[in-house]
Amino acid sequence: MKHSSGILSFCVFMLLIVLSADARLAAPSSAPRAPARTPSFEDVKILVVYYSLTGKTEKMAEAVAEGAREVPGVVVLTKRVEDVTKEDLPATDGIVLGSPVYYANMAGPMKSFIDGWGLRFNVYLGDKVGGAFATGGERTGGKQHVVVSLILAMMNNGMIIVGPTHRQGNVRFGTFGVSAQTAPPDAGIGESELSEARKPGMRVASVARRLKPGADEK
Amino acid sequence: MKHSSGILSFCVFMLLIVLSADARLAAPSSAPRAPARTPSFEDVKILVVYYSLTGKTEKMAEAVAEGAREVPGVVVLTKRVEDVTKEDLPATDGIVLGSPVYYANMAGPMKSFIDGWGLRFNVYLGDKVGGAFATGGERTGGKQHVVVSLILAMMNNGMIIVGPTHRQGNVRFGTFGVSAQTAPPDAGIGESELSEARKPGMRVASVARRLKPGADEK
Amino acid sequence: MKHSSGILSFCVFMLLIVLSADARLAAPSSAPRAPARTPSFEDVKILVVYYSLTGKTEKMAEAVAEGAREVPGVVVLTKRVEDVTKEDLPATDGIVLGSPVYYANMAGPMKSFIDGWGLRFNVYLGDKVGGAFATGGERTGGKQHVVVSLILAMMNNGMIIVGPTHRQGNVRFGTFGVSAQTAPPDAGIGESELSEARKPGMRVASVARRLKPGADEK
Amino acid sequence: MKHSSGILSFCVFMLLIVLSADARLAAPSSAPRAPARTPSFEDVKILVVYYSLTGKTEKMAEAVAEGAREVPGVVVLTKRVEDVTKEDLPATDGIVLGSPVYYANMAGPMKSFIDGWGLRFNVYLGDKVGGAFATGGERTGGKQHVVVSLILAMMNNGMIIVGPTHRQGNVRFGTFGVSAQTAPPDAGIGESELSEARKPGMRVASVARRLKPGADEK
Repeated sequence: MKHSSGILSFCVFMLLIVLSADARLAAPSSAPRAPARTPSFEDVKILVVYYSLTGKTEKMAEAVAEGAREVPGVVVLTKRVEDVTKEDLPATDGIVLGSPVYYANMAGPMKSFIDGWGLRFNVYLGDKVGGAFATGGERTGGKQHVVVSLILAMMNNGMIIVGPTHRQGNVRFGTFGVSAQTAPPDAGIGESELSEARKPGMRVASVARRLKPGADEK
Repeated sequence: MKHSSGILSFCVFMLLIVLSADARLAAPSSAPRAPARTPSFEDVKILVVYYSLTGKTEKMAEAVAEGAREVPGVVVLTKRVEDVTKEDLPATDGIVLGSPVYYANMAGPMKSFIDGWGLRFNVYLGDKVGGAFATGGERTGGKQHVVVSLILAMMNNGMIIVGPTHRQGNVRFGTFGVSAQTAPPDAGIGESELSEARKPGMRVASVARRLKPGADEK
Repeated sequence: MKHSSGILSFCVFMLLIVLSADARLAAPSSAPRAPARTPSFEDVKILVVYYSLTGKTEKMAEAVAEGAREVPGVVVLTKRVEDVTKEDLPATDGIVLGSPVYYANMAGPMKSFIDGWGLRFNVYLGDKVGGAFATGGERTGGKQHVVVSLILAMMNNGMIIVGPTHRQGNVRFGTFGVSAQTAPPDAGIGESELSEARKPGMRVASVARRLKPGADEK
Repeated sequence: MKHSSGILSFCVFMLLIVLSADARLAAPSSAPRAPARTPSFEDVKILVVYYSLTGKTEKMAEAVAEGAREVPGVVVLTKRVEDVTKEDLPATDGIVLGSPVYYANMAGPMKSFIDGWGLRFNVYLGDKVGGAFATGGERTGGKQHVVVSLILAMMNNGMIIVGPTHRQGNVRFGTFGVSAQTAPPDAGIGESELSEARKPGMRVASVARRLKPGADEK
């Protein structure tokens, strides 16, 4: 359960944030950075994990992290899929996964990371909150199948799933995730895509905060 | 069963409608019935909606409802898809949808019901908790595609999604829903299937209870 | 099997083409129309079936039909989902289905049409060639889930499935279907979308032609 | 294109069959073996590729191969996913992929193999015929999502997709693939599962044979 991580893994989490060169606690350096603060027990911790070869999915991951940080009391850790450690997973309250499309599914390294939940990390992610995003060059190449696949993987480890929500005039609705087209006719990752990517970050963080005992009272 | 609740529960239902603007209670008469109690504003309300031609999906729906009622402070309304009214949807805290497989997807009447969220009911289900189940005669006929399709529909209306969780020895895990094989080589809907069906009911009710302000303090 | 349709249903097919006001044999009136010819036994017959409320999916369906007609020896029938008759289905060699996204899945009338394969038409579509397309306003609203759902439905009736194929420089690849975004940031159905829509029409027709005995010898 | 493999790759294919210890041309040693024959240009070549840790998926793969060999003029190569070489893929007329379920999707090594179509092998599989199967212990663990994922991957490389077909009394229908439950309440891989697994082998081989020029005339 989410409380089982305890002080030890929390300290590891802190250390990671403070020391690790791979860990990215905050906004990309070009973005305005939130004032440094010391995470506390009650902080809601969101982990954004992505695979990226060309940097497009990484840009989206950073926007997801930005969205999560907009929720008060939330700290965000953004990691490449190969950098995630055994300690990162139990310490988190919410996880957002992102991958490019390779043959209508997530990239192999993301799939191997997920398999590692059982094979390497032996971790149960029950009641943590999850969301997903994908990038791809083709209009019908499988971006949405990537999002669905990431959702199903998280559900099979007991997670609670949310997508971003939207408002158009008086109409409110949701989507099951975010997918960005990275090749023509779309112009690639621009402000429109980044703005969409902030939403699942915000939603995952917000629902994780509501579900975390003690987090609402701050 | 929809008709099995009988006059008593119908009166209770009427009372609910008359007395409480929001609360709705029902329990199938054949199931062990919880001692009568007056629903209050803080009750967590779960709606189980299903389509059933042969009665198999209806049996599963009743087991889902049983599972939900095992969570303290939860009242459950079970309805055939064609009986759901505009008032049922906003009043609920959690929804579990179930359908047989027709050509690898939910039955047409379930799809038309879902389309009605926008076209007839004009309802936003944001932050309500959802789960799904399916029945089908074939091993690879699409039961899981039905479950995924129901999940995605609920996410596109802003819902939060959970599947059942399981424990085998020391291993804990989840699944994205429940699917029951209703034809050989499987023996049809038996205690094994019904026991599985109780789980998403319990999980949806339990997460809805955690998310409902005021519901935990009782 | 595909040969079982026989002379009678072929004549019905001919009659439909010649007499029916609902049948649309050829290009939309604004497009250059192929010279009239009398279909023969060896003609490969492609049926394009769509649901459209606003006309966007209809535009795509017409482009699919245009693509199919580019294959020699192919005749195309384009029909709204509610206009398809029992005779249309066995008489065809290939079927392309298209629907807008409603709550991350095909529109209810398309699902009811598909259910009708068993419930109303009692038709086996074994070895006919199928393809699918979708339209939708949201980037991650479920267009691809519609395409996958249409594919799985056709496979569950015994059909052979193909998507369009593409060439970019020296690289050749396929996609599992076509999906068109019909709202901003995309500009709606333009030449780019229509050009994509022609491809599955061409591919379904081309593979259906290869599979039809006698069709290659012309 | 399928003809581009040429004499050279065909000879490589022959050599593989004759020499390689890893290649398994025929039935498992315990099954009655078809009389040895020399493959010719007109032979339809089917490649069955699987990932298996416990041997269950391997048993299913062997049954798939048995089914394919029942079609006259077909030779079958069955390979573990890690043993497939660059030469195997262009030389084949049909491919059946199988994987166990890991977190509601194919196992990582199968995904990496598929990514290798572009990254390692640089191979276009256009117009080859494909089918898929999955194994898994859970009723709703994602076996069908594995089958769908394998289908979509093959379509994104230009393949033509078929599932097995079935007959129950007078009713004929198809399914989009085969999935075997390998844990209770199901008894594991038995004759019932193996009998199902033969069907996609037979269907893929049969459609590949119809599509191969010269193969029908024998």
